Amino acid sequence: MSGTFYGVGLGPGDPDLITRRAARLIENATIIAYPSLAGGDSFARSIAADLIPATAREIRMDVPMTRQRAPAQAAYDVGAAQIAEALVQGHDVVCLCEGDPFFYGSFMYLFARLKSRFRVEVVPGVTSVTACAAVAAMPLTARNEVMTVLPGPLPDVALRDHLRAADTLVVMKVGRHLARLRTLLADEGLTGTYIERATLGSEVVLPLSEAPDDAPYFSMILVTKGADPWL
Amino acid sequence: MSGTFYGVGLGPGDPDLITRRAARLIENATIIAYPSLAGGDSFARSIAADLIPATAREIRMDVPMTRQRAPAQAAYDVGAAQIAEALVQGHDVVCLCEGDPFFYGSFMYLFARLKSRFRVEVVPGVTSVTACAAVAAMPLTARNEVMTVLPGPLPDVALRDHLRAADTLVVMKVGRHLARLRTLLADEGLTGTYIERATLGSEVVLPLSEAPDDAPYFSMILVTKGADPWL
Repeated sequence: MSGTFYGVGLGPGDPDLITRRAARLIENATIIAYPSLAGGDSFARSIAADLIPATAREIRMDVPMTRQRAPAQAAYDVGAAQIAEALVQGHDVVCLCEGDPFFYGSFMYLFARLKSRFRVEVVPGVTSVTACAAVAAMPLTARNEVMTVLPGPLPDVALRDHLRAADTLVVMKVGRHLARLRTLLADEGLTGTYIERATLGSEVVLPLSEAPDDAPYFSMILVTKGADPWL
Repeated sequence: MSGTFYGVGLGPGDPDLITRRAARLIENATIIAYPSLAGGDSFARSIAADLIPATAREIRMDVPMTRQRAPAQAAYDVGAAQIAEALVQGHDVVCLCEGDPFFYGSFMYLFARLKSRFRVEVVPGVTSVTACAAVAAMPLTARNEVMTVLPGPLPDVALRDHLRAADTLVVMKVGRHLARLRTLLADEGLTGTYIERATLGSEVVLPLSEAPDDAPYFSMILVTKGADPWL
């Protein structure tokens, strides 16, 4: 009988924000898998590092950062094949995922390749959205407010309508788009809070007006128009 | 010195989805606080029940379910006053919150009343959004896709524009609005997946077409137009 493929959300970065279920799966894992970007350290692995058994076999998928999708696809193809081999042999495989596996997560690329052949279980995790709200002390949504999550790389025209329509805006993947996003928000009469590396030791929380133009990829802007939770 | 007021996210319902930090705070609590609705059991307390020390003092806020806001406000006023009294005496207070404290959470009403006078720390939790995606095996968002969270009680005209504009739609608080929402989605050529009580023993996952018209309040519809995570 084949093993189970676990997609395990690890939360935003602080190992204390790993769920009890995720922690137990990692502590008991014989095979773990995780992505790393362009030869760098794996952020997912670093979150879970203290929990990984020394005896566990590690399947590392190094994903190149290119505009073309084919090289990344090839990395996931190779990783999925290695994972499939272990599953066929009856081993469970625990895939480490930053945040939540199904929320802008690379786990989805493995899920798409393996779901038809194997039992897959996803353990949801704390996302950077609510982690950023917590560290910024900003309530996100109350009552019947609408919240939209927007990737910062989208063009202005796509962003603008959403900025107008929702009560709460979560702009992800800010990075080098920060100056453009700040201008776009200001043009709509909006300001926000900038958060970088939420829940990590190097965390930064600033009014958007004071945020650095060279923001890292893992940064976010939160805008709340409503969320008056007094009443 | 006053104590700290902790808003602790407990996740969607399965106690295993409590984070390690939340579990430790509850296990060591001397005073816990939580809401209950209209004289019923507290869902938040039930999630954390196994972790609550027998010796802990419990501040229960019974919130009436009325259309008028004043009775609920009064309940939070009374609860905030009890919590403030304990904080002034130097005790920490751990407030139990379903899901995440700042995501449609009643914790916000206490936060608004206490934040200017006391140290408050929010521990983010797994939201029902990613929990529902996990149990339904539905990737939510990949790459630069846009996700909007919509409360089901909103009028059709407010919902329709968002249904058209986002790639992924999360309709919360479905309850008695289910039939109307299903029609509204169908009119836009959309269908979705219905999830009820995600991660609890009584969990239900169905195509929206098969969902019961008398859905409970804690139910959700997920719609993904994009999220093709193969590439």
